[in-house]
Amino acid sequence: MAAKQELEASTEFAPKFDEHGLIPAIAQDARTGQILMVAYMNRQALEATIQSGYATYFSRSRRELWKKGQESGHFQKVEQILVDCDQDCLVLKVSVEAGQCHAGYQSCFYRALSKSTDKKLEFIAEKVFDPQETYKKQG
Amino acid sequence: MAAKQELEASTEFAPKFDEHGLIPAIAQDARTGQILMVAYMNRQALEATIQSGYATYFSRSRRELWKKGQESGHFQKVEQILVDCDQDCLVLKVSVEAGQCHAGYQSCFYRALSKSTDKKLEFIAEKVFDPQETYKKQG
Repeated sequence: MAAKQELEASTEFAPKFDEHGLIPAIAQDARTGQILMVAYMNRQALEATIQSGYATYFSRSRRELWKKGQESGHFQKVEQILVDCDQDCLVLKVSVEAGQCHAGYQSCFYRALSKSTDKKLEFIAEKVFDPQETYKKQG
Repeated sequence: MAAKQELEASTEFAPKFDEHGLIPAIAQDARTGQILMVAYMNRQALEATIQSGYATYFSRSRRELWKKGQESGHFQKVEQILVDCDQDCLVLKVSVEAGQCHAGYQSCFYRALSKSTDKKLEFIAEKVFDPQETYKKQG
């Protein structure tokens, strides 16, 4: 308990990576407050983010570092990095100039649970770019 | 790839729980946009949240369902539940009447990485309640 309270009051940045060496990072639009996406960082991705000033994640599917925007050009300029009480989650306050979800939306959270049923989703956003156009250079 | 695109365009709510049966859920203040905390839900916690209208999580340390506020009285009334493109993360837009971090802050994200060093944290918030007072009935 003492250790827990120390961690909560500490000014030492000591991010806690999980058993896979990852920590979740929430990208939040610094201007609007909109939550844009959630991804994961390993220590190397976090260091790259801090050093470059641009959000870099670890792709769990491709098993590699992934600078957000490297294919789409839709980068995230990091304004501030917040950490929670037990240091096992990060919030990145970011500035963005384009939609952040690879499906074409500003945010990955473009659907909400319908209030009338608890199994259906409703789209709450419109696409802001065309993914086929944006990613067509991929191959 | 087809399955992935179907998932992204689907109106079926099909939350993806991880190997521990959990999905991360971000509580965001519906009024201010502030990210309050991140916790995890198992299927039962998600169902309890939907049915009660109040955020209920699964405590990974205590291995039990945990209605946020059950000890502190600082509940989260759920206004909307959002899901991301691949349905492996939730955002809960919540209404709150009191600080949400057990350490006494409005948000668990009360510290930011200092810009002058990359190892020190700065406090960016003041406490809004006294945890010792709030939780004194526990022991």
